[in-house]
Amino acid sequence: FAIRVRYADTDQMGFAYYANYLRWFEIGRAEMLRSLGTSYREVEASGIALPVVAASCRYLKPARYDDLVAVETAVAGFRRASVRFQYRIVCELDGELLAYGHTEHCFLGRDGKPARAPESLARLLERAPQAGAAGG
Amino acid sequence: FAIRVRYADTDQMGFAYYANYLRWFEIGRAEMLRSLGTSYREVEASGIALPVVAASCRYLKPARYDDLVAVETAVAGFRRASVRFQYRIVCELDGELLAYGHTEHCFLGRDGKPARAPESLARLLERAPQAGAAGG
Amino acid sequence: FAIRVRYADTDQMGFAYYANYLRWFEIGRAEMLRSLGTSYREVEASGIALPVVAASCRYLKPARYDDLVAVETAVAGFRRASVRFQYRIVCELDGELLAYGHTEHCFLGRDGKPARAPESLARLLERAPQAGAAGG
Amino acid sequence: FAIRVRYADTDQMGFAYYANYLRWFEIGRAEMLRSLGTSYREVEASGIALPVVAASCRYLKPARYDDLVAVETAVAGFRRASVRFQYRIVCELDGELLAYGHTEHCFLGRDGKPARAPESLARLLERAPQAGAAGG
Repeated sequence: FAIRVRYADTDQMGFAYYANYLRWFEIGRAEMLRSLGTSYREVEASGIALPVVAASCRYLKPARYDDLVAVETAVAGFRRASVRFQYRIVCELDGELLAYGHTEHCFLGRDGKPARAPESLARLLERAPQAGAAGG
Repeated sequence: FAIRVRYADTDQMGFAYYANYLRWFEIGRAEMLRSLGTSYREVEASGIALPVVAASCRYLKPARYDDLVAVETAVAGFRRASVRFQYRIVCELDGELLAYGHTEHCFLGRDGKPARAPESLARLLERAPQAGAAGG
Repeated sequence: FAIRVRYADTDQMGFAYYANYLRWFEIGRAEMLRSLGTSYREVEASGIALPVVAASCRYLKPARYDDLVAVETAVAGFRRASVRFQYRIVCELDGELLAYGHTEHCFLGRDGKPARAPESLARLLERAPQAGAAGG
Repeated sequence: FAIRVRYADTDQMGFAYYANYLRWFEIGRAEMLRSLGTSYREVEASGIALPVVAASCRYLKPARYDDLVAVETAVAGFRRASVRFQYRIVCELDGELLAYGHTEHCFLGRDGKPARAPESLARLLERAPQAGAAGG
């Protein structure tokens, strides 16, 4: 899934501001869910939220204004009460790796308490691209 | 109320990105409510929301990284079903006017339908600084 | 040009935060330039910047998480020293108008001083969709 | 240094969106530099930039609209070519830890190439609060 770097995303160094990569990670996992036949909106509508409990990013090369970057998302760990996604931000033009990172999420029920992932979501996440041994 | 321009706010022109001024307007009206003895959180808790129905800004001089800007907020029109705020963004250092604008808000009840401003809020808004005839 | 409303764009009312519409306007004019065969990156590389001198938006219906909104951009006034763009944000699904607004820009040379639009840019802007009499 | 959570920062879960914490980290390190008698603006003016090469955050409890959060920043490692900052986001009201994380930065000269920290900056960073052994 490709994202265009906008003027709003840049800072006065001329690069995409570092917090925006976490926003791109959000886009990556949302589009991964969509490619699996659901959407995060549907997941929330079913009563389960996936708040972020941890996030990290390593920045290798800056993304610049008007660049197209692709987000590659994989599941890097799925357990009863939590899921970990792994992301690679690559230059759409030449495939060069610009940044990589991960997010961890817990499952929260409508009552705001930890919950197990519903069966349907669990099956989807098992069908998702899985992070390889060499992953970030 | 003074706001520091952060790196996150700048763009590659080296200026604060134009959409951030609307964020600063939000800060201006929130702090005006606080100075009147309430807060927008309390207003929402009382069952009334003030969604924005219109906004405008005129940009005279750019704000730059690490500048301190002050937001001066005034009520520029208060009616049963809507309120209009007016803002001036000035350089904290020398008082120079950098931008000005306004927002219009309707009152919305818990049912998501237009409502009248509660008496208590109405009285507060009448005590707020009122925009003069020469305002933006 | 269609834009997906992301979680990052929402606020606790469950709507897209009002300042994001100005970001969408940026996307609208950038993609309009691209559809005309240039890009804002190229315009800047040629030595001309188009900083925003005014912006406004009227919000009719909220955009919500995961909605697809389309930005329709037109030139609403082009003069030697400035250009005005007009935008409509519509629901991609049913074409309903959610918001409309405009931005005004001056032309700035590398020296940071007002400049005339270069001939090549002027010709492009004259070929762009022009705002009709009924426009916002 | 205390930061007010704004409507712009919230998402439809009613919490501060997770990428905003990296923005708060920026505020934390900027204000730490200021408390040491310099500013990041001055550092950049002296020809040295500190781009972020890595960032992480662990989210323990959500920050909500209108909360005041304090950022506590410490130096967690300073070497010739890089510096690591560590942050704690705590509730201003009761001191409860909401999130913690770190950022790593390299030093970049005007030519965009890795550089050593200037002596003056090095001395400042050595005088800064240093992260203890138990840090995040």
